[in-house]
Amino acid sequence: MNNRHAVIMAGGAGTRLWPLGRRERPKQFLPLVDERSLLKASAERLNGLLPHDQIHIVAGADQREAAEKAFGVMGERFIAEPEGRNTAPCIGLACQWLVHHDPSAMVAILPADHWITDEPIFRDTLERAFELATVSGRIVTIGIVPTHPSTGYGYLQLDGEEDDRGVPLRAFIEKPGAIQATQMLTAGGYLWNAGMFVARAQTLLDEIERQMPATSQALKAIGGAIGSADYDATLKAHYGNCQAISIDYGVMENADDVWAVPGRFGWSDVGSWDALGDVRPRDANGNATKGEAALIDCTNCVVDAAPGITVAAADLEGYVISATKDAVLVLPRRSSQRVKELLSALIKEGREDLK
Amino acid sequence: MNNRHAVIMAGGAGTRLWPLGRRERPKQFLPLVDERSLLKASAERLNGLLPHDQIHIVAGADQREAAEKAFGVMGERFIAEPEGRNTAPCIGLACQWLVHHDPSAMVAILPADHWITDEPIFRDTLERAFELATVSGRIVTIGIVPTHPSTGYGYLQLDGEEDDRGVPLRAFIEKPGAIQATQMLTAGGYLWNAGMFVARAQTLLDEIERQMPATSQALKAIGGAIGSADYDATLKAHYGNCQAISIDYGVMENADDVWAVPGRFGWSDVGSWDALGDVRPRDANGNATKGEAALIDCTNCVVDAAPGITVAAADLEGYVISATKDAVLVLPRRSSQRVKELLSALIKEGREDLK
Repeated sequence: MNNRHAVIMAGGAGTRLWPLGRRERPKQFLPLVDERSLLKASAERLNGLLPHDQIHIVAGADQREAAEKAFGVMGERFIAEPEGRNTAPCIGLACQWLVHHDPSAMVAILPADHWITDEPIFRDTLERAFELATVSGRIVTIGIVPTHPSTGYGYLQLDGEEDDRGVPLRAFIEKPGAIQATQMLTAGGYLWNAGMFVARAQTLLDEIERQMPATSQALKAIGGAIGSADYDATLKAHYGNCQAISIDYGVMENADDVWAVPGRFGWSDVGSWDALGDVRPRDANGNATKGEAALIDCTNCVVDAAPGITVAAADLEGYVISATKDAVLVLPRRSSQRVKELLSALIKEGREDLK
Repeated sequence: MNNRHAVIMAGGAGTRLWPLGRRERPKQFLPLVDERSLLKASAERLNGLLPHDQIHIVAGADQREAAEKAFGVMGERFIAEPEGRNTAPCIGLACQWLVHHDPSAMVAILPADHWITDEPIFRDTLERAFELATVSGRIVTIGIVPTHPSTGYGYLQLDGEEDDRGVPLRAFIEKPGAIQATQMLTAGGYLWNAGMFVARAQTLLDEIERQMPATSQALKAIGGAIGSADYDATLKAHYGNCQAISIDYGVMENADDVWAVPGRFGWSDVGSWDALGDVRPRDANGNATKGEAALIDCTNCVVDAAPGITVAAADLEGYVISATKDAVLVLPRRSSQRVKELLSALIKEGREDLK
């Protein structure tokens, strides 16, 4: 029996790719890089590593339809959160489902909205993480070997040298400033925190019990109702009692004996228009274009035109243009983070419809 | 009896303000600067100068609806061109209508798609032109006193000093290069050619007869059918025989004894997005915005959002953004002339629908 499972967390509702990404159409459901949604790509890159019917998706109940559009009827493999309460409760809920059916379940927790190249290397890395987690009983994170001093990612500080199993983890480091990021890159011994890890599901539940007792109690009540007619009511009644906190803060930072397996594949959290421009196919002038566009003397631009809209641009170097039916974004790539400010300004003016 | 008429030429189909301006929705029918279309503003600024029912519009037959939307039922005051054949035939056709009803008719020929500020000064100038044309029998152009060395306009070279009647015209000068434009501005004695002039309608027809005999013959055949059941058929049969040429080339350059009256009012042909940005009301940061927009740290931009579309932009200096339902334009203001290239590129790809 293959006891390997994957839980893909698809509940995020980021608006960093607004106006393309919206509250009700978050980036994991969008075909951002190729013709597949990021979610679909996240599942497909697990091919060969574990059975398709052991891939689970956890997300808001209202996203079941979008998930089933991508994967067909999912049944119990779609695990619905009654409300978003960050990743610790979300992962705890998924683990309750897994151990209900298989107390020995091993699980890879994976984000739905990242982009990975070099998929064979990704699969080898995940294979190593499964092996280490299975043999050792440890929680094993997959960190990315940094290629530049990014200030957009959190870091994993390693404790010693990598051997053929992996390397022990010393600490989680918050997103650094530019100087600290450069120092870490120079010093070595740091990985980007990609939010991917492998563990026995029961180990994660045990850590939650130890570190987040109230949340654990709520999750146990929910887990006890799985398979009964009371499940929905129990979920609704108790999920809100879970502490809304990330798995990093709530569990990983103080978990016993966490290890890392360094990932040497291409990886991006596609966390901004600028980042999207880096992972998309580009034309000879460096423009990453999706949809209908006429570009004259444009270089290194990220252009996204929704169906039915044509973008025409000239003499632009390094700009973002995202054109949707009701909103158009234009800014320099280096200003990609200001999308949030723009959206906030619009919401302040009562434009909740654009969220 | 007031024998003063105005003929507003509304047949142009420029796409220099694409994607807002389209073949079927040219700029004269758009509320570009304030809430009125340029055409409506062109008519309203004649208030007090001549009776409303002596304002005629000449345009393609398919634009009657748009014209009547602006002005109410126009009857014979809407003069339909069966096809666009540049301004000489268009003006000749209008003059046939005017002399049919009133052989003594004086006419001001005015473009529908320009923007004028300082309207009282405009009216005084036009009044002077009517007076000079009436008294002298001359063709009298209204030229604009240049405010900068524009390379986007043609020029009128004056022949002597202005007196209280006006000033004789020596020559029409094509759009100059930057050096020539600066020389003309420094030297003085030049006006911008605004395409506005006043004459007895019969004088214009006489000049057409002298300089463009074939066109004159066609126009006479059409004029002879006015009021008869054959008019439409005659118009269709003969208008195509008119030479497709501008009034400047076809008539004005070689007309006898043309005079000019210098106009000291604000004037723009709104011939580009850049020009539109100069005539529109601007916010404290110099942004000329129409429609819904959120701008953060943007200066001197021209932003146009069609109803139902919101433009969001940050960190832009001197850019044009025009967002319509099916097309979005983004370029630096100084690249405004490249709209043509972009549209050509799209049409080459079979996108006639965007024209």
